[in-house]
Amino acid sequence: MDAAPGPPHSPCTLRREKSGGTGGHSPASSLYFRFSIRFVNAFSVILLDLLPAKNGEEATMQFLLELVGILTNYVRKTFDRSTKVLDFHHPHQLLEGMEGFNLELSDQPESLEQILVDCRDTLKYGVRTGHPRFFNQLSTGLDIIGLAGEWLTSTANTNMFTYEIAPVFVLMEQLTLKKMREMIGWPSGEGDGIFSPGGAISNMYSVMIARYKYFPEVKTKGMSAAPRLVLFTSEHSHYSIKKAGAALGFGSENVVLLSTDERGRVIPADLEAKILDVKQKGYHPLFVNATAGSTVYGAFDPINEIADIYGAWGGGLLMSRKHRHKFSGVERANSVTWNPHKMMGVPLQCSAILVREKGILAGCNSMCAGYLFQPDKQYDVSYDTGDKAIQCGRHVDIFKFWLMWKAKGTIGFEQHIDKCLDLSQYLYDKIRNRQGYEMVFQGVPQHTNVCFWYIPPSLRGLEHNSEEYREKLHKVAPKIKAMMMESGTTMVGYQPQGQKVNFFRMVVSNPAALQSDIDFLIDEIERLGHDL
Amino acid sequence: MDAAPGPPHSPCTLRREKSGGTGGHSPASSLYFRFSIRFVNAFSVILLDLLPAKNGEEATMQFLLELVGILTNYVRKTFDRSTKVLDFHHPHQLLEGMEGFNLELSDQPESLEQILVDCRDTLKYGVRTGHPRFFNQLSTGLDIIGLAGEWLTSTANTNMFTYEIAPVFVLMEQLTLKKMREMIGWPSGEGDGIFSPGGAISNMYSVMIARYKYFPEVKTKGMSAAPRLVLFTSEHSHYSIKKAGAALGFGSENVVLLSTDERGRVIPADLEAKILDVKQKGYHPLFVNATAGSTVYGAFDPINEIADIYGAWGGGLLMSRKHRHKFSGVERANSVTWNPHKMMGVPLQCSAILVREKGILAGCNSMCAGYLFQPDKQYDVSYDTGDKAIQCGRHVDIFKFWLMWKAKGTIGFEQHIDKCLDLSQYLYDKIRNRQGYEMVFQGVPQHTNVCFWYIPPSLRGLEHNSEEYREKLHKVAPKIKAMMMESGTTMVGYQPQGQKVNFFRMVVSNPAALQSDIDFLIDEIERLGHDL
Repeated sequence: MDAAPGPPHSPCTLRREKSGGTGGHSPASSLYFRFSIRFVNAFSVILLDLLPAKNGEEATMQFLLELVGILTNYVRKTFDRSTKVLDFHHPHQLLEGMEGFNLELSDQPESLEQILVDCRDTLKYGVRTGHPRFFNQLSTGLDIIGLAGEWLTSTANTNMFTYEIAPVFVLMEQLTLKKMREMIGWPSGEGDGIFSPGGAISNMYSVMIARYKYFPEVKTKGMSAAPRLVLFTSEHSHYSIKKAGAALGFGSENVVLLSTDERGRVIPADLEAKILDVKQKGYHPLFVNATAGSTVYGAFDPINEIADIYGAWGGGLLMSRKHRHKFSGVERANSVTWNPHKMMGVPLQCSAILVREKGILAGCNSMCAGYLFQPDKQYDVSYDTGDKAIQCGRHVDIFKFWLMWKAKGTIGFEQHIDKCLDLSQYLYDKIRNRQGYEMVFQGVPQHTNVCFWYIPPSLRGLEHNSEEYREKLHKVAPKIKAMMMESGTTMVGYQPQGQKVNFFRMVVSNPAALQSDIDFLIDEIERLGHDL
Repeated sequence: MDAAPGPPHSPCTLRREKSGGTGGHSPASSLYFRFSIRFVNAFSVILLDLLPAKNGEEATMQFLLELVGILTNYVRKTFDRSTKVLDFHHPHQLLEGMEGFNLELSDQPESLEQILVDCRDTLKYGVRTGHPRFFNQLSTGLDIIGLAGEWLTSTANTNMFTYEIAPVFVLMEQLTLKKMREMIGWPSGEGDGIFSPGGAISNMYSVMIARYKYFPEVKTKGMSAAPRLVLFTSEHSHYSIKKAGAALGFGSENVVLLSTDERGRVIPADLEAKILDVKQKGYHPLFVNATAGSTVYGAFDPINEIADIYGAWGGGLLMSRKHRHKFSGVERANSVTWNPHKMMGVPLQCSAILVREKGILAGCNSMCAGYLFQPDKQYDVSYDTGDKAIQCGRHVDIFKFWLMWKAKGTIGFEQHIDKCLDLSQYLYDKIRNRQGYEMVFQGVPQHTNVCFWYIPPSLRGLEHNSEEYREKLHKVAPKIKAMMMESGTTMVGYQPQGQKVNFFRMVVSNPAALQSDIDFLIDEIERLGHDL
């Protein structure tokens, strides 16, 4: 796949189709499909002639358009089911160099021609995460509007710390955060928030905010100014809560894991008992995390008792009138993590931490760097939001999300989410009584996560509680996954969970996926796993 | 500037110039310059016809190419000195809506035509950070290869946590980090490292690593398992060290600020005295941060006594044979923060934390999430590097940097850095004896930072030590800066520092800047400030 139309060093023909003089109404696109990475030889030596070089405009435009030819070709293939999801190679193979694709860096520059070949090869040996049959991660799909947003963001190449150099993006962030708070249900969308480099950092913020609210002196005096503080989260929750506990000086042992029911939802009575236990020991229960859409099972914890919410994976369901009841009680949380880069299909990275109390983010994090946040600017400096971040420079993550929201409307996100949940229901209905399948938990999934074992014919006669069966079954998913990757046809995740041996975790967030892709996945599992 | 060639709702003419049948060798670029955002009406309603819709290819390609027309137009103008750096508007003006540019989000989708208008307007009301006369930040410039790298990265839209879904990028990161460690001078480039979302997070890593090295039990038991730990850093250092101290549970009061000499360099004797003082109090000195290129003065601390290095701004100088002596002793550090997105002109975000001791990053941060880092994969899972991050999902920041390194070679970065330092020397020579200027510190700058006051004629007769003079001078830089932004001609930063009233901090990292742009800046300061 992805073969170049000619050897990289062939002389240029920047091929164009004649448009036939039909004026403006003929399809422009056919013209561009034909771009290849063949160049005039003269072009291949002129990195130094790109902008900002004098008269560098033409070479720059030509280079960028050749690149866009490579990228749009990749986009087309991404959605083409006849292409593979990946062309797998082991690390040592790529490190040794593949047909002129050499990863090593050197002192001397390469030609622009080679740079474009490098770009093509980088895509060729990567993974098409937008392919309709890529189900491997919570973040899948390639949204064209989101992609456009990212291209623009990198062209603008600015920084969120001050209004001064990111006026439009700063305002977009404020408006979007307000809209998200309205969907959470906080009165008039009041509160605060910020986009962070991912759900783990957003969760770190939520823990910091809770600590600052009850023990503000920790900011200046350190953890010794507080009693022993304890965090609570589901044994099924994302590992980032534990990471935050370790990083922020609580200690991972002070992150207490809550027991869950068969579906992976926190048992409220267990939370109550563990809080009591912690209190009796003289420690201070600080923070309870509820998970709205757990990573593996897609479980929604019962929120109504709980103070802080981690809904990175499930957050998008707030946009669905059909499914938002799963968030019942979310408006009682003090903070919410919501990752539009997962269920909502926004390109990576796009994660928000939303906070009910205005001003607490700044209180918690500000250090008032005079060189960045001068109070004597000519505009309203309350729009300089950088000091409430734990970062200094901050990438513009808002624009692609804002643009997608504009293009889809709230209603478009809702349709996407309802469709993904319908597809996972389709998968669930298809396999729950199918021969050779066993569900990891019973009942309709709460999210798009469908967790199941595929049991090859050779295992079906064995006693299911035997050690032999468990050992053999544990190896099935890794073997099928390895064959999937080698053949490049589809990708889906697997893992063990507690006492449960390796099972497949199927998730749907890819807007390109259809029922036929679900059928394909099941056929593929059976094709590859039948003789194990 | 940036006016659309026609009203947004005019009927389409996708204008093309006839190429005159010259085959492949005529300049392709002229064809594309002419793209406008005018469409066929039919195109303006078909968001739902973009990919992944059936037969969505053509509409998708057309949409993306229209967008590229807007972006390349912006790129061209960015380098055009006859355009403004920015078109300033106050927050309330942008919020009220500018000529059809409405930031509010709604339930219903917008047409693709409007989406493209939104894209154009987003750029129009933003700041051209790549403009040759934009000197406002440490990160300036628009590197075309870096831009290409970002466009590709967003098209690939994947995640650094596993080799499985980012094979090429994971290897590029490893090779590049090794190369950077070689430049630091660690034997054979051994050690560890990771790209993080910015210098502040990289510095947070460095503090966490130091804590883990000497008090590993803090990871599980929290800060109470260690004595009172103290961090040391220059009073001129970046505020992120203090932020890290607050966030990680040390407390900002346990971040001791070191006195500096007149040039902003840490005084080693002061470090020694303060370490002794801390020890006498029974606390534990954990971490000393040396700054290589301070934010305001560009000062290089004397490194040879010091354990951990923050060289986010100055890191690029390691690539210059002429200037790397300023890093003398850096190889003795345990960790180094190096931000290629600053001096080296890599698009935001691109920051690395480099560590001398192999395995310590993983030791410090790993939580072994089974669903992500399965040990039973078919490839060498030592390439699954995600668990050593404090993040889970991690944006691909490496590719643009790798691609720039390929295209420039080490030698190209060196030339860029030497050129920037030459330009700042040019500025220094120009103003140090010029009437109306006073340097904030004497002597040739160590980095590209040139810090100076402009003194309008009305102040020149006043007693320099008088309160009146200080008060008046303090207002000069903000006033000039405000006028600069209103007129949109150039941008440069200012700030106070300690007892010193507001002064300009000029920095050069923009590869597009020439001596004439330095001249322009000085002329502009005098034009705007003469009558103050």
